[in-house]
Formats: sequence, structure tokens, C-alpha cells
Amino acid sequence: MKQIRLNAFDMNCVGHIQQGLWTHPRDRSTEYGTLNYWVNLARLLERGLFDGLFLADILGVYDVHGGSRDSAVRHAVQIPVGDPLLLVSAMAHATEHLGFGVTVNLTYDPPFPFARRMSTLDHLTHGRIGWNVVTGYLDSAARAMGLDRQVAHDDRYDVADDYMQAVYKLWEGSWADDAIRADRAAGVYADPARVRAVQHAGTHHRMDAVHLCEPSLQRTPVLYQAGSSGRGRRFAATHAECVFLNGQAKHSVRAIVDDVRAGAVKQGRQATDILAFVGATVVVAETDALAEAKFADYRRYASGEAALAHASASMGIDLDAYALDEPIRMVETQAIASNLEAVARGAPGAPVMTKRKLLDRMALGSRQVPMVGSPARIADELTAWVEEADVDGFILSRTVTPECFADFIDLVVPELQRRGAYKQAYAPGTLRAKLFGAGDRLPPTHPAAACRWGAA
Amino acid sequence: MKQIRLNAFDMNCVGHIQQGLWTHPRDRSTEYGTLNYWVNLARLLERGLFDGLFLADILGVYDVHGGSRDSAVRHAVQIPVGDPLLLVSAMAHATEHLGFGVTVNLTYDPPFPFARRMSTLDHLTHGRIGWNVVTGYLDSAARAMGLDRQVAHDDRYDVADDYMQAVYKLWEGSWADDAIRADRAAGVYADPARVRAVQHAGTHHRMDAVHLCEPSLQRTPVLYQAGSSGRGRRFAATHAECVFLNGQAKHSVRAIVDDVRAGAVKQGRQATDILAFVGATVVVAETDALAEAKFADYRRYASGEAALAHASASMGIDLDAYALDEPIRMVETQAIASNLEAVARGAPGAPVMTKRKLLDRMALGSRQVPMVGSPARIADELTAWVEEADVDGFILSRTVTPECFADFIDLVVPELQRRGAYKQAYAPGTLRAKLFGAGDRLPPTHPAAACRWGAA
Repeated sequence: MKQIRLNAFDMNCVGHIQQGLWTHPRDRSTEYGTLNYWVNLARLLERGLFDGLFLADILGVYDVHGGSRDSAVRHAVQIPVGDPLLLVSAMAHATEHLGFGVTVNLTYDPPFPFARRMSTLDHLTHGRIGWNVVTGYLDSAARAMGLDRQVAHDDRYDVADDYMQAVYKLWEGSWADDAIRADRAAGVYADPARVRAVQHAGTHHRMDAVHLCEPSLQRTPVLYQAGSSGRGRRFAATHAECVFLNGQAKHSVRAIVDDVRAGAVKQGRQATDILAFVGATVVVAETDALAEAKFADYRRYASGEAALAHASASMGIDLDAYALDEPIRMVETQAIASNLEAVARGAPGAPVMTKRKLLDRMALGSRQVPMVGSPARIADELTAWVEEADVDGFILSRTVTPECFADFIDLVVPELQRRGAYKQAYAPGTLRAKLFGAGDRLPPTHPAAACRWGAA
Repeated sequence: MKQIRLNAFDMNCVGHIQQGLWTHPRDRSTEYGTLNYWVNLARLLERGLFDGLFLADILGVYDVHGGSRDSAVRHAVQIPVGDPLLLVSAMAHATEHLGFGVTVNLTYDPPFPFARRMSTLDHLTHGRIGWNVVTGYLDSAARAMGLDRQVAHDDRYDVADDYMQAVYKLWEGSWADDAIRADRAAGVYADPARVRAVQHAGTHHRMDAVHLCEPSLQRTPVLYQAGSSGRGRRFAATHAECVFLNGQAKHSVRAIVDDVRAGAVKQGRQATDILAFVGATVVVAETDALAEAKFADYRRYASGEAALAHASASMGIDLDAYALDEPIRMVETQAIASNLEAVARGAPGAPVMTKRKLLDRMALGSRQVPMVGSPARIADELTAWVEEADVDGFILSRTVTPECFADFIDLVVPELQRRGAYKQAYAPGTLRAKLFGAGDRLPPTHPAAACRWGAA
């Protein structure tokens, strides 16, 4: 039976996806600024044999709803938000196997120092670091960087393609595998003949640099990508090892998964080089009735205004301007492509969307509709996703945290294990080795391999 | 009696200051890529009541000596080098009081995401973060960033002045002190009326941004600065809280300390707003004879070639091109100002410097001449520095690590405590409160205070 892979989905902030739930008396997300909060979470996830903790990030503030940031600030909708990379070393020291997939926006972070950050973490975590490649979509971030506005959506992916070439050269090509001698008797740490400057003169980035870090176990971090637009899928097919998808319907997610895998094969990669993860929100208890009661309790704390503030920014549509039953119209937007956006644009067969329907769907303060039920019902649903959408695992959003993860680990994980659908123990090795059951490094069919020392 | 403050001086690399000592059988610096190495160091320093761990950093590679990077790479002269900020959370979680003064080069790091990094760490460390402000001095870093060459020395400080204004606005002015409500019952996390975008339109940086982090205990991290050139001193007098000086002679260090303090007073700050730290290398053992024996053992492992590679880059002079007894000539350089550079430029009264003299001075692979002796002798010398140079403490370089710090803590710290020159326990509070015995925030006379909400 296919083994389900699991990531927890979190963010260095109070309100991540399920807006408003920080007000629940048992929610601890207001402690996000303390190390104990993160270290305890990491230990909990490792107890549950989670493959990784996936950390979202955003630069900028959500200011589309009502034309201001007030709703976002009032309800802590991803603001304040701390840097996610800085959480990793404390969590890594407290764990042995848990991976860390960290979101970093490449638009505002030059390749040279960024490549060092990721290599440093790959060393410190002993090969447990991943990178969720994003290009950002907020004008507020562009203004914060001294620009007038953001780069257009498809152009951002062109910048990203160029950027990936630059960091591949640094990670894969600057130090040969045998560069490190660490020979005390000879007084030689590295062989200068096996360390070289790499050059890049791309459409957007220039560089002439020796990578600052010696080779780490994975070299290139495990590459995650979450774009589902046409251009985003093309990027994923080229670069991604793990794709992170969201959607309400299994068939539509399956279509994207199939498309990305086909795109990868077209470029000489294997379909199995790509793992697909779908976002999921789970509310579980010992019985269906108890789970429904828990869900009813949680939803009392969700915030519709906060959910709309988040959705407005994601869609690039000011939902505050709509009456409850007014159809939401397609607009030209440079924000991220999302399933909801497709709905708003009137994708074929999609129902007319209104704010009322949207709010009803966002029962826990998010567009992600939760799975609610007993361990058996949740396991059934997860398994159906794996079979029907051909996904390899899930990225589990937090609801009331950390109890949502504890509940999942105490109730759902044993049920999945009984069914043979979840590992009984961690496999050894790096994050990449654990995820793919193969080596620590990218396979030779990945485009980064062309940047290696000795590559043609 | 004046209380001596102590920082350990280290770097996320193999060869930091004392080049070649990584080859000593007891040196553990080749483990710099592991978290245990750093966590154990932090715990050791906290046992010794050190005020802080000062982490150096460099972007780029030393390629002046012999016109190539080969010596630096062969001897691990600050290459490879990992990102220092990423070490902090693991060490902070393992300690309660130790401060972290981290070097970050502002030339290549835009103010908006950098300000978030430091605020994130100020939260996670509960107010124990400091920033050593540097502007970089290597052409290799500029090329790695896609530029042809670095900005000229004095211009770098103009860029830095502009940068400081931008980050002060983010740290001090974007969120009011009472912005956070965290009121679960009311469903209000922050008051939107008390959070504002800050604008900056400076000579080098533009920005229109809400700071991404809520107020941390210190807001602005404790500001360290190490420039001793005229322009560097002016920058320090304006911005620095802790200045880090190096020098062989107490009177010359005193002259700089006096000058920086006078410059600060001229700008309306207090002389006591600035703490002066001098770099020191200590080799200590139970008796003078044992310390001399330890020194003799250590120096067998020092590398002259590596020391020259480091010195060449720091001075911007290719020392490989000189015969042993040839006077080192003044050259125009954009590298950092250093005391040795002043010597090379023929400062009044300075002896003629040759490579032979330089190598002899660099007994442990560094231009920093070690203090060698019994605890009493070391304590005498440290006290003499405090009295004659009017410094407030020391930044202790590592030699053979971590035994050099353990030796200092086991032997010198008790001797200083007996003399009443060193604390018996940590004071409570943030790094700034500990260092200055006052509040968590910058004093109202600091220029950052003008950026506060409600400031004139």
C-alpha cells in the first residue's frame, strides 16, 4: 500500500490559514515568538513520524480587503510574521529526523547569500532542509523594497528560472565532492584545485562567486513548489521535487498532478521524481459525533472578516466591496492563481460564487474545507485522496494548535499504521533520502545536475 | 571596581583569527557545521557568565595574497563560512542569559527583510540579540552580487548611515508600544490605529513599509561597531553602543575610545552610552611556566601562510609579493582600516614593518599578540587594559577551541571574581539591560529614538 507522507503546515505568526482560531482558549499560537513553542511542536511532530514541518512565509501585508490593512492587523492575519529560517536550528537540535520545508521568496533575496543560508541549514540539520520556492505576489512587499509595484505574474517565474540556475551553480558546482581534505597532519583543509568560482550571466541575475559553504549532504535543498497556474506548473515540472496543491475536488487536483508529472517526463525526468502533497485540514476525535462537536466548538472562534481579508489578498479581489449575494466577478490580477480565483473567473462548470457561499465554506476561517470525523472516517478520506487524486501525502493545516497535531498523531496516525498506509518508524538518512527512498542528492535527470563539477 | 564585560569571539567557520590552529589535535573547530558544537559552546560561555558570544562574518573570499584564493581555501581562512544568524536559535534555546552579537553586512541585505530577521531573533532570544554593523570590504563579495567592484570605503559609511535610518524607522516607529492587544474575547490581536507604514526616501534606500514584526523587548538590537578609521569612528559615535577595537598599545586604543566617546557627546549622547571592548587572545594555565608551554605547543600548529592570506586581505596588500625583510609600503586600499594598515602606511612613530616581523608577531597565526601566563598575570594584564585604555571589557578570540574558553572560565574568571572585577551572577533582563544596567530600549539620546511613535 502506498505510504502516506505527512507535513505539518505552519507559519511564524499568530493567524496562519484558519483565521480567528487564535482566540480559542486552548490555542497557543500567540506564543509563536518563543522557542519553547517551536521546539515542543517539532518534538510532537517527530513523535508522530511526520516527514516534515512546512513553514509558510509572506513578505508584505494583506491590504486588499477594504483597501486597507486594518482587518489583517486587527485579526493577526499573517501579520505580525517572523522570519521562518531562524526557527530551524532550535527545532533541529531537539529532533533527529523531522524535515523542514521553509518558504523563501526569491524575488528580494540575492542568490549568493541565500544559497549560503540554505547550505548552512543543510549542514546544521544534517541534511533535513527543504525550500519552498515562491516569488511573492504582494505590492506591499514591492513598496517595502523601494519599488513601485511587483513584477507581473509570469515574469516572476522567468526571474525564478534564472535564479534557480544561479543557486544550482553555487550548490552543485562550486566545490567538488572531494574538495574537503580536513587533513590535520598535512595542514590542508580543502584542495584549492577542487574549489572554483562559478559564473552566471542570466537575464536577471549576474554572479561570479565561490560558494561560501563546503558541500552539505543534500547540496540543493529538497525543492517544494506550490504554484498551480499554467506557468507555475511548468516551473514545477522543471524544478520541483514536491508539489503542494490545494483544491476542493479530487479530480481537479488529479488533473494538476498528472499535468505536472507529464511535464516533468517531457523534460527527461521521471514521474516518480515528483511527490504531490495536497493541503488538508482535519478535525478528529474518538467518534464522528465528538469530532462534529469539536468542529462546532472551533468554528465559534473563526473570524469571517479575517478570512475575507486573507482571501481578498490571495485573489487580488476586494471582497469587502461585494454584497453578500452578489456574484464575485473575474478581475485581472497579479496575485497568486488559486482554485478560488479560477472559480471567480468563471471556470467552466464552476458555480457562481458569492461572499455568502464563501463565508459558509470558510467555516474555520479558511477556504480549506475541513475533514471532520472519527479516525476511521479521516483515514478513509485521506486514503481516497491518495487513490483518486494520485497524491503522495498531505500538508496538514493547523486549527487550534498544537492540539490539532496532537489529536492527529494520537488518533489518525495509529489508524493509518493499522491499515499499512503509514510508516512505523523513520527511514534513515536525509530528508530527500527519506522522501524518495533513494540518495541524498538530486537525481541526474534534474536540471541542477547539469551544474555539477564534471557535468557536460 | 569596574566590572569587566566579556564576549567570546567566534565565527561559523574553521579558521577564524588564529590561523592554522584547527590542526591542533584537541581543536574541535572542524565541527562548526554541527549544532552540538554551538550549543555546547553557548552552555560553556554561560557557565562562565560571559555577556555574549560575538559572531564575526564575511561575505566573499580572501584572494589578495598571491593574487588568488588558494591559500585561504587550503587553510580554511574564513572559507568555508556559514551564515551566523542561523546558529542563534539553537544556542538561545539552550541558554538563558548569554547575549548574541552577530555580524551582518548591510551592503547586500535590504533593510526590510533584514529588520525582520533581527526582530525575529530579538523575540526568540527574549531580548538577547545584538548586531555588529559592517559594510564589507571585499571585491569578491561585490562580484558575487553581480557588481563589478565594491563601493569606496567612506561611501560605504554614507550608505550605512542611510540604512540605519531605514531600520530605525522599522524597529522603533512602525508599531506603537500599545499596539498589541491580544484580546481573545474581543477578537482583536493588534490595534490597526497603532500600526503604521513608515516611509524612507534616503540617498541610497527607499521604503514604504509596515514592519513585519510586533515590538520585541529591545526593538533595535544592541548595536556593535568595529571601525577605527576616521569615518568609522564618526559612524560609531553616532550609532554604536559597543565599539570593538583592536590594537597592540593601550595608549593608541585609549585615544580611539576617547575620540569616539567625545564624538558621541558632541552629538548629545552620554559618554557612558558607549562601551568599549578590545580584542584579546589569552593563553592561560595554572602557572606562567605551564602557560608558556601551552603557548609553545599551540604555536607549532599555527600557519604563517594562512596568517598572511588573512592579513593581505584585511590590509588590501599582497604580502606574498614581499621579500621577508623588505619594508611593507603604503598602498591605496579600499579594504578595512586596521592598526596594521596604519603601520604599513607609515603612521608617525611606527617602526618599519616587514614580513619577517609580521610573521614573528603572528605567533598563533594572527596579528593579535596573545597574553600568556598564569591567571594572576592574565588578570593583571586585563585590569591594566581597563585602567589604561579605559575599555569596558574584552572580546576573546579563540585559539584551540573550545578548550581556550574552558581554560579562561576555569582559571581567569575566578581570579577576576576574587578581585571584584567580574560579576558573580548574571543581572536580569535583556542584553542591553545587562550591559548598561538600565532599560531594555535605546536611551532617548540615541538617534533611533527620533524615529519612535510620538517623537518630534
